[in-house]
Amino acid sequence: MQVIEVTFEDIRRMRVRGAGRIARAAVRALEEYGLGLDVGKEEFFKKMKEAGEYLKNARPTAVSLPNAVNYVLVNLEREGQNVSQMSVLKEVLKKYCEGFLKRSELAMEKIGSIGSKRIQSGDVILTHCNSEAAMSVILAAHMQKKDIKVFCTETRPRRQGLLTSSRLAKLGVDVTLIVDSAARYFMNKVDSVVIGADAISVNGAVVNKIGTSMLALAAKEARSRFMVAAESYKISPKTFVGELIPIEERPKEEVVSKEWASRNPAVKVANPAFDITPPEYVDLIVTEYGVFPPQGILVLFKEVYGLSEILNQ
Amino acid sequence: MQVIEVTFEDIRRMRVRGAGRIARAAVRALEEYGLGLDVGKEEFFKKMKEAGEYLKNARPTAVSLPNAVNYVLVNLEREGQNVSQMSVLKEVLKKYCEGFLKRSELAMEKIGSIGSKRIQSGDVILTHCNSEAAMSVILAAHMQKKDIKVFCTETRPRRQGLLTSSRLAKLGVDVTLIVDSAARYFMNKVDSVVIGADAISVNGAVVNKIGTSMLALAAKEARSRFMVAAESYKISPKTFVGELIPIEERPKEEVVSKEWASRNPAVKVANPAFDITPPEYVDLIVTEYGVFPPQGILVLFKEVYGLSEILNQ
Amino acid sequence: MQVIEVTFEDIRRMRVRGAGRIARAAVRALEEYGLGLDVGKEEFFKKMKEAGEYLKNARPTAVSLPNAVNYVLVNLEREGQNVSQMSVLKEVLKKYCEGFLKRSELAMEKIGSIGSKRIQSGDVILTHCNSEAAMSVILAAHMQKKDIKVFCTETRPRRQGLLTSSRLAKLGVDVTLIVDSAARYFMNKVDSVVIGADAISVNGAVVNKIGTSMLALAAKEARSRFMVAAESYKISPKTFVGELIPIEERPKEEVVSKEWASRNPAVKVANPAFDITPPEYVDLIVTEYGVFPPQGILVLFKEVYGLSEILNQ
Amino acid sequence: MQVIEVTFEDIRRMRVRGAGRIARAAVRALEEYGLGLDVGKEEFFKKMKEAGEYLKNARPTAVSLPNAVNYVLVNLEREGQNVSQMSVLKEVLKKYCEGFLKRSELAMEKIGSIGSKRIQSGDVILTHCNSEAAMSVILAAHMQKKDIKVFCTETRPRRQGLLTSSRLAKLGVDVTLIVDSAARYFMNKVDSVVIGADAISVNGAVVNKIGTSMLALAAKEARSRFMVAAESYKISPKTFVGELIPIEERPKEEVVSKEWASRNPAVKVANPAFDITPPEYVDLIVTEYGVFPPQGILVLFKEVYGLSEILNQ
Amino acid sequence: MQVIEVTFEDIRRMRVRGAGRIARAAVRALEEYGLGLDVGKEEFFKKMKEAGEYLKNARPTAVSLPNAVNYVLVNLEREGQNVSQMSVLKEVLKKYCEGFLKRSELAMEKIGSIGSKRIQSGDVILTHCNSEAAMSVILAAHMQKKDIKVFCTETRPRRQGLLTSSRLAKLGVDVTLIVDSAARYFMNKVDSVVIGADAISVNGAVVNKIGTSMLALAAKEARSRFMVAAESYKISPKTFVGELIPIEERPKEEVVSKEWASRNPAVKVANPAFDITPPEYVDLIVTEYGVFPPQGILVLFKEVYGLSEILNQ
Amino acid sequence: MQVIEVTFEDIRRMRVRGAGRIARAAVRALEEYGLGLDVGKEEFFKKMKEAGEYLKNARPTAVSLPNAVNYVLVNLEREGQNVSQMSVLKEVLKKYCEGFLKRSELAMEKIGSIGSKRIQSGDVILTHCNSEAAMSVILAAHMQKKDIKVFCTETRPRRQGLLTSSRLAKLGVDVTLIVDSAARYFMNKVDSVVIGADAISVNGAVVNKIGTSMLALAAKEARSRFMVAAESYKISPKTFVGELIPIEERPKEEVVSKEWASRNPAVKVANPAFDITPPEYVDLIVTEYGVFPPQGILVLFKEVYGLSEILNQ
Repeated sequence: MQVIEVTFEDIRRMRVRGAGRIARAAVRALEEYGLGLDVGKEEFFKKMKEAGEYLKNARPTAVSLPNAVNYVLVNLEREGQNVSQMSVLKEVLKKYCEGFLKRSELAMEKIGSIGSKRIQSGDVILTHCNSEAAMSVILAAHMQKKDIKVFCTETRPRRQGLLTSSRLAKLGVDVTLIVDSAARYFMNKVDSVVIGADAISVNGAVVNKIGTSMLALAAKEARSRFMVAAESYKISPKTFVGELIPIEERPKEEVVSKEWASRNPAVKVANPAFDITPPEYVDLIVTEYGVFPPQGILVLFKEVYGLSEILNQ
Repeated sequence: MQVIEVTFEDIRRMRVRGAGRIARAAVRALEEYGLGLDVGKEEFFKKMKEAGEYLKNARPTAVSLPNAVNYVLVNLEREGQNVSQMSVLKEVLKKYCEGFLKRSELAMEKIGSIGSKRIQSGDVILTHCNSEAAMSVILAAHMQKKDIKVFCTETRPRRQGLLTSSRLAKLGVDVTLIVDSAARYFMNKVDSVVIGADAISVNGAVVNKIGTSMLALAAKEARSRFMVAAESYKISPKTFVGELIPIEERPKEEVVSKEWASRNPAVKVANPAFDITPPEYVDLIVTEYGVFPPQGILVLFKEVYGLSEILNQ
Repeated sequence: MQVIEVTFEDIRRMRVRGAGRIARAAVRALEEYGLGLDVGKEEFFKKMKEAGEYLKNARPTAVSLPNAVNYVLVNLEREGQNVSQMSVLKEVLKKYCEGFLKRSELAMEKIGSIGSKRIQSGDVILTHCNSEAAMSVILAAHMQKKDIKVFCTETRPRRQGLLTSSRLAKLGVDVTLIVDSAARYFMNKVDSVVIGADAISVNGAVVNKIGTSMLALAAKEARSRFMVAAESYKISPKTFVGELIPIEERPKEEVVSKEWASRNPAVKVANPAFDITPPEYVDLIVTEYGVFPPQGILVLFKEVYGLSEILNQ
Repeated sequence: MQVIEVTFEDIRRMRVRGAGRIARAAVRALEEYGLGLDVGKEEFFKKMKEAGEYLKNARPTAVSLPNAVNYVLVNLEREGQNVSQMSVLKEVLKKYCEGFLKRSELAMEKIGSIGSKRIQSGDVILTHCNSEAAMSVILAAHMQKKDIKVFCTETRPRRQGLLTSSRLAKLGVDVTLIVDSAARYFMNKVDSVVIGADAISVNGAVVNKIGTSMLALAAKEARSRFMVAAESYKISPKTFVGELIPIEERPKEEVVSKEWASRNPAVKVANPAFDITPPEYVDLIVTEYGVFPPQGILVLFKEVYGLSEILNQ
Repeated sequence: MQVIEVTFEDIRRMRVRGAGRIARAAVRALEEYGLGLDVGKEEFFKKMKEAGEYLKNARPTAVSLPNAVNYVLVNLEREGQNVSQMSVLKEVLKKYCEGFLKRSELAMEKIGSIGSKRIQSGDVILTHCNSEAAMSVILAAHMQKKDIKVFCTETRPRRQGLLTSSRLAKLGVDVTLIVDSAARYFMNKVDSVVIGADAISVNGAVVNKIGTSMLALAAKEARSRFMVAAESYKISPKTFVGELIPIEERPKEEVVSKEWASRNPAVKVANPAFDITPPEYVDLIVTEYGVFPPQGILVLFKEVYGLSEILNQ
Repeated sequence: MQVIEVTFEDIRRMRVRGAGRIARAAVRALEEYGLGLDVGKEEFFKKMKEAGEYLKNARPTAVSLPNAVNYVLVNLEREGQNVSQMSVLKEVLKKYCEGFLKRSELAMEKIGSIGSKRIQSGDVILTHCNSEAAMSVILAAHMQKKDIKVFCTETRPRRQGLLTSSRLAKLGVDVTLIVDSAARYFMNKVDSVVIGADAISVNGAVVNKIGTSMLALAAKEARSRFMVAAESYKISPKTFVGELIPIEERPKEEVVSKEWASRNPAVKVANPAFDITPPEYVDLIVTEYGVFPPQGILVLFKEVYGLSEILNQ
């Protein structure tokens, strides 16, 4: 159980961070733990399940953690059910763990490869914040020598758009930086908005950096496409049972200087980190498994992570 | 002609600035000039017209300048036509000039008084940038002891929202500052968006600070009211004959620091100062003459400044 | 002044009721009063104005009262200005008062005649509540032998739809009564919704029986036309200066029986008498002066009642 | 076969009524019948199928009846296929029948628990008619001490809103009763409309009490959420093969008194009991198995009741 | 009266055709007739009115004819009222007739000059049918060396788009011909749809070649501008009093060959010549007097042709 | 392997054409080939896979070809996995091949039977182009003696609407032919648009004859239903991994005569054969397997053709 506990602590103390890295750490721990177990089949399943549940509690709000754990457990049970030899069962465990790890490591590349097929030479793209998946799509299209033009929003308050525009420009993409509120001014010339996701809800609603839903609305108004690029483990299993994804309220100092705030104590500052884009404003969600309509994202979830745990709760 | 020339220079060299102040300076000049003329009726009309046209050229892009001049000339001709005595004619001139000056000086107060009638106790208001007219409406409602709550957007790049929130808070209004892109996040709780205008087009389209049209779109989506507060001389007469209102492109240094720009020379920055809100997203335009539907703003213009000059061109 | 005082009391004590009747009573009083005045021109204007203002206070919330009074005063001043003989001036007064009375008495007929031109044989019509003007349009079409079919909504809580359906059926119209909430179910087969108005706002928003705005929304969704039939004096002059039309809250006993209410004291009942239909859901407003787009209703008001009083306040 | 016949008669003669009760009666009958069968495996499957088909005909329009029967048969075949011992096969039957019965009995509670997670303290809710599932959501939120305010529509013609408001008020919920047509008047202040369903179509369209679709339209217009609460067996399998759900036309006496009707024989009364809300107006469907986007409801159906029978017909 | 009769016959027998030519013929006749009259003032007005009414009947469905006649009569009465000398009165007549003729002959040029200001270099334009006014706008922009690209629809059944594309291409414009139903395919790249009008309704609805309203709908969906170019005398005065503009049904042979029709006698062919574009899909109407919002077109009508005749009917 | 090669050539050289015929030819070849194989299980699977992949390359853009091949391979593997006897394995192959062939041959009939259930007596239908599946729905409703009325669009440039109207009329359907651009003129009277598909994208977007998306837009505007009729093998598997369906550009001679083109060399002609209707404008997709919401079409694909190949790529 040691590897499980160590990983638990690594995740809990945020020594391991980022949706992808957390997911992979958990799967690696389960693999190592399971391969080392010297018990019978029934006990094996029981212990794996316990380890999984334990790991999930390391960071209860992380979306990718329960998905990664369930992926291993669900597939282990499905394929392992009719297996009687322990060595074969461990092979099954290994196959799925290695599969997950490989997929996850290649996820960004896959998303870029799939999403870039939907970008055509001559397209004007708008992106927001600094999403690795969205940039993967844009850069794949650029590397395919497609002639694209990209608008990056500044993304107040933390101005991640400066990072995005800087990186894209250095790689040779034609980039224009604009303030967030100028998006509608340019939207009529934009072919596709390409954007990442922090979490995806069961109904295809997308939780992403504050301002995303306004871009989606402006894209809809101008008949511009709106494409979300995200790894499959961003789908939130808790939303299947009704839970709302909590929206983090961040410190006011991101918006105004401490000095200004102290001179204006009566001015309140609200600083939500994310907003929610409804599915009717999303054309497609691009994942490492392919392209899905927002209302069909639960089919992907079912295929990869399984709905049975949810349906049977 | 001296007063005309001096005023021309004052406006041209921007010693007199602001839509209201420019308008009043021109009218004062015309009044002084006209009262000092010692000529016959026909010559009087001719000279007044010349002086007016001359003044208009002091700053060809100022919306309020031609309106103010036309106001005097149109009314002088209309009412002076059947007057034969020069002393009476000068009285007519005086009446309209003084009338304009008084109206103009009271415009903000009037707009506040009229617009605030459409705000009810319990309302949540959202405003953008730092518009005197919009604040006049909000403060009038506050002074009437209506219980209101105001969201101020930061208004990148120049962050005029800090001025607005600071001033409203100091006057006791319950104010919350948000980044521009958070507007849709809060819009469902907003009753009225109250906003100023830099210019109003013949069809009721509103030219205002970049980001305004996105707020209007989000307000429409959430069935929140969208009220524009502006003095009547913001209506652009040139749009009646098809001209587009030019959108100023401002320096990139308002968006990124010089230092960042020099480190990222390949990143272009687009910084349009205004955008255009289409009339179908505007519920009402509040002026010092009352409330108008956007598509009816030309009726106000006709009544106050006259359409004859436009129709006869 | 006696006739003015008597009429004031008649209106105040609601011995005279209904938008049309109140308007005509006020005009008749002004006519009789003016014709009996034995004073000079200046005094005549002054006294007429006083009488008018006095009458307006008989019922401050009646929309038609100030319109009727202003109609007389505005036209009297406009046409009487250059008249020097008192007998001629009184002729002017008489002309406008008689004109108003005749127009007003014929208003319903005119509205029926004008509005029915927009109904074609084979049309399916939906109406709400029990509006004399809307029925005038429907009956005129029926009398022209057009083959129409009418849906009447029940119009809770006072069920005026029973009166409407009963009257139309007795006159031979093909009528179907439905509950209010069934309107969308049938809307896809409806060609025109025809409806009255309690008041019309400067921007073309229509205040009418609760439920009207929902019908307008459902009509818009199904591309059915939405026609408002109303006399011109239903346009509210106060809305030109920003005032909101107050929505009457009526007794809960209209919704539930006293007995039920007493058994359920914790259940609150909200019973607003009217709602507001925004102009973008209204295709046309039919008045006794012709047809107007909602956003152009202020042009009608200006022509008939004059904007000058409003603009000069 | 006796238990099957008795249950058939109970359902046919409406001694057993209500979607849930009918479903459970059918499953109980199948369980008892199957456990009592003393035949070989092949014959067992054949007889169970016959019994199921027979039961389905007891009330061909009931949505829950075929779903319940299919649930048992589909799972029995899936899991029983590779079973050779009859005693084990009967265990399988028992497991699924007992599972269904338990799920069904707990469905309301589950729906309340899941749906209430999407209601936040401070929310204003609107409900229509007298849906057990919708009330379960509202009451669960109330029991969790969330500060909510509820509008109940009267729900003409049968005025079930009086029952709903009365019950909620007695349990301490802050309730306001309104007439159906006042819904848009209050909608801008409503956060969530919560509503039941009589049947759900394959594409996510919701058949519910007349007026529901108008509320959904008004909710969409005001960016209010629209949540449907319904047990999974409300999904109509016949709609998968194109059938329309018939809309019951109810007696005119529900709308007008017999006496009024006899005095107005020419007035037709149309009284459809239900209308259809299109999926684009529905945000979420809450079932006892979790939350689904309307266009994804077929995934739930497939998981629980199986699509194979439909696909193979 | 001879000139009146000759002109009447010329118009009636369609020797004079086209909205502009009919209007000018009528005005020329009224001028010649009036200048030749040797009667007193009262008789002069009476005879002019008679001649005008007579002329109007030459082609009752022509929109421009009553407008032209009314223009002369209304202005004659307005300005002639206080004139006592017949020679001066005839000067007034001459002034307005000549003014009208000159305006009308220059109308296309004016419309081109005004409308082209709203086209910017780089714009993509789509036009339909073969409208002189729309082409005037496009060609003016082209002559101003603006870099534009034009899509011409074929315009079935009479394929006027071939004329338009041929003419524009010969004048050096970059033109692409497409079938009518391909408009939405290209619309997302179109900046402005520019189109003519056969008639304009009081509420700003535009009657134009079949297919126009579908283009307007597709333009709205894609946030492309929709500009109507039309002379002011296309505004239909009859629509002010409720009349619908009749839609001509043209012969089936325009759609299918006689031979095909005879082989398929059971196939009906419907061939309406025009459709109606609702005002909410029209951004601007460009006339020779300037630019108007569709709902403000009645202000133009009032200014030029006068509403008094309509309001006093 | 001979049968595979022959079929490959037949498809490649377009001796076999049409989505259905291509699919069936491939399945027949696989069946014959497989039944003739005299190898062990492992080799059998390997050879079948090779043959399938080879066949897919016969016409890489055909949508139905890879679907048909995958159908056989996926089911063979799924059901054959646990089979040890070769004779049984061949039975499995035979079962699925025969099943596919039968399904495919009956697909049109099934689609007609299912889709016609959604058409009611009294309905007005509009169809475009000459789709066998759409006509199957219409004719099935007609054969069921439902009283329907059909509008056929001409469908420029190739005028397939003449074929459709001719055929429907000969079978006794009440048919009216209209030009494509008249669709919105009649849409308000249309209950259902019924249309075929050339391909369906993973997100439910429908690729069909140019003009389809404009009809869908006009149907949405008028609350008319929009039903797509298509065989399940029209779902494009490549869109699951992001590929766009290429839109064929056809010769200009379909639009203008060679002679006209040579006289107007500067006029470009754009002639795209298809356009794309977004899923939000599609109510239902009717297939031979039943009815699906556009966003749920991937569930059908998964059930019939399997997603595993896509997910595992």
